[in-house]
Amino acid sequence: MRLATVSVDSHAVCVALLANGSRVDISRAIKMLMPDTSIDVSTMQLIIEGGQIALEALSAVVAAGEAGELKDLLVPEDAPLLSPIPTPRKNVFCVGRNYAEHIAEGERAQKEKIGITEHPVFFTKPPTSVVAPDADILLFPSVSQSIDYEVELAVVIGNRGRNITKADAFNHVFGYSILNDITARDIQRRHGGQYFKGKGLDGSCPIGPYIVTADAISDPQALSIGLTVNGEQRQNGMTSDMIFDIPTLIASLSEGLTLEPGDIIATGTPSGVGYAMEPPQFLKNGDVVVCEVSEIGTLRNTVRAV
Amino acid sequence: MRLATVSVDSHAVCVALLANGSRVDISRAIKMLMPDTSIDVSTMQLIIEGGQIALEALSAVVAAGEAGELKDLLVPEDAPLLSPIPTPRKNVFCVGRNYAEHIAEGERAQKEKIGITEHPVFFTKPPTSVVAPDADILLFPSVSQSIDYEVELAVVIGNRGRNITKADAFNHVFGYSILNDITARDIQRRHGGQYFKGKGLDGSCPIGPYIVTADAISDPQALSIGLTVNGEQRQNGMTSDMIFDIPTLIASLSEGLTLEPGDIIATGTPSGVGYAMEPPQFLKNGDVVVCEVSEIGTLRNTVRAV
Repeated sequence: MRLATVSVDSHAVCVALLANGSRVDISRAIKMLMPDTSIDVSTMQLIIEGGQIALEALSAVVAAGEAGELKDLLVPEDAPLLSPIPTPRKNVFCVGRNYAEHIAEGERAQKEKIGITEHPVFFTKPPTSVVAPDADILLFPSVSQSIDYEVELAVVIGNRGRNITKADAFNHVFGYSILNDITARDIQRRHGGQYFKGKGLDGSCPIGPYIVTADAISDPQALSIGLTVNGEQRQNGMTSDMIFDIPTLIASLSEGLTLEPGDIIATGTPSGVGYAMEPPQFLKNGDVVVCEVSEIGTLRNTVRAV
Repeated sequence: MRLATVSVDSHAVCVALLANGSRVDISRAIKMLMPDTSIDVSTMQLIIEGGQIALEALSAVVAAGEAGELKDLLVPEDAPLLSPIPTPRKNVFCVGRNYAEHIAEGERAQKEKIGITEHPVFFTKPPTSVVAPDADILLFPSVSQSIDYEVELAVVIGNRGRNITKADAFNHVFGYSILNDITARDIQRRHGGQYFKGKGLDGSCPIGPYIVTADAISDPQALSIGLTVNGEQRQNGMTSDMIFDIPTLIASLSEGLTLEPGDIIATGTPSGVGYAMEPPQFLKNGDVVVCEVSEIGTLRNTVRAV
């Protein structure tokens, strides 16, 4: 299933996508199809927390929609997408240095050894950084002169867990989305080497367009992942090239740390970032940045100086 | 005012402390004193978001309580404290290397130059790490062998803002609390130098016992700040020794990054941490750790291996 959150009359409405591209209002459909149910599917966070029962209800919604039974419950075609989880209830977990070619380009650009770490490099982005598909990536000329992009596969956690084993990791995954880990390179380096501030600016975390449930992705470690700026291909990789694969990331992150439904983990970016180009190319006002991950879709944002 | 959250019949109840130590149920008191008001003060997050109107209502509650008018609205004496904001709606912002003597002890212990950074060192701790006063600090023997303490003054943000100036910073502060930035030293160093994972374990962020509103602190940069382990004094400093003072931290953090009501900023720890002792002293099962900040109170937690 492909699930999204859209804005209808300034209200966030969760929708399921049908094969023809139309979008069913999940909450209204559930009320019609299952008038006696007590499950609350009014937000994406609640859908994810609803677990298997919510997923089965959503499957019934999609089946009824594909059968043409829900024509009165479609949201308007022009209802804009929000981020699938518009306000995550904690920071987004992120992973640095998870593709060898990205590490190599960083070493060339910074003229220093970075190397592959023995354990994954984790940091976070705050909920205030999350923006919708089609929303603006903000440039703050007074704050940073070197805003860069990083396309990433985002993993959305379904089932709560601590000390999750690699073998069990995929049982904790609800689905996948696309995330652009916008980074202020100058700020990233100047706060004692901690990435948070340079990764945490407002508008620096576009996520979307949908969450694709785990059952609908053939192999999350065999997806193409790419990014263009104004139509020019800048990043073009495969999720098979992750140094720490998804089960390893979930196992390492959850050691002594409880993962909860709705948690988002950005899994690192392949090579091709702007700062490592010769000469470096940072994002400019008006640039159009498009992230693409196969089997998920495209995440398109425009850069806007404020 | 001194505000806290307590657990009554497994429900979180916000309370105001009276001079005699008794605790008034804020929500019930507001309903009695102002039956027509529409303000919602049922959670600490809502109280903080309520701004000046909520603060004035709370002042009326405290005045009535001190006048003996609210005797039926006290919570039981044995109702345990929760963390003042039991589940923050984003990660706690933290600051590293903000006291010169703490940097110096780190350089001695690690035998390398750390130095004072030009900009504050920001990282985060997830909401899952937050625990109550009197709750357990968890030890995971399979995950870390070097759990350490760090007493810190916590700043709670009141008014939303981005690009906050130093001159305006204190206008964005709701109040202050105490935070123990429990750190797994081995994990802190092994994830490519990013602090997040070693700072993010479950039970690694006791906060409390109260939030003291800003008007009730004489000078937040002139507080004594200390910590004992099993009664032995380990840390003993003054908030006047911060390298980056509170206005500078708020100004730096909010550059291009919106701070919101209820955000928590831990402002760094003075010297005396366990890993820098000779020989290093890490926390053990059963240890009692007490943080103390003048004008706020004490935050006491016991270490428990799980």
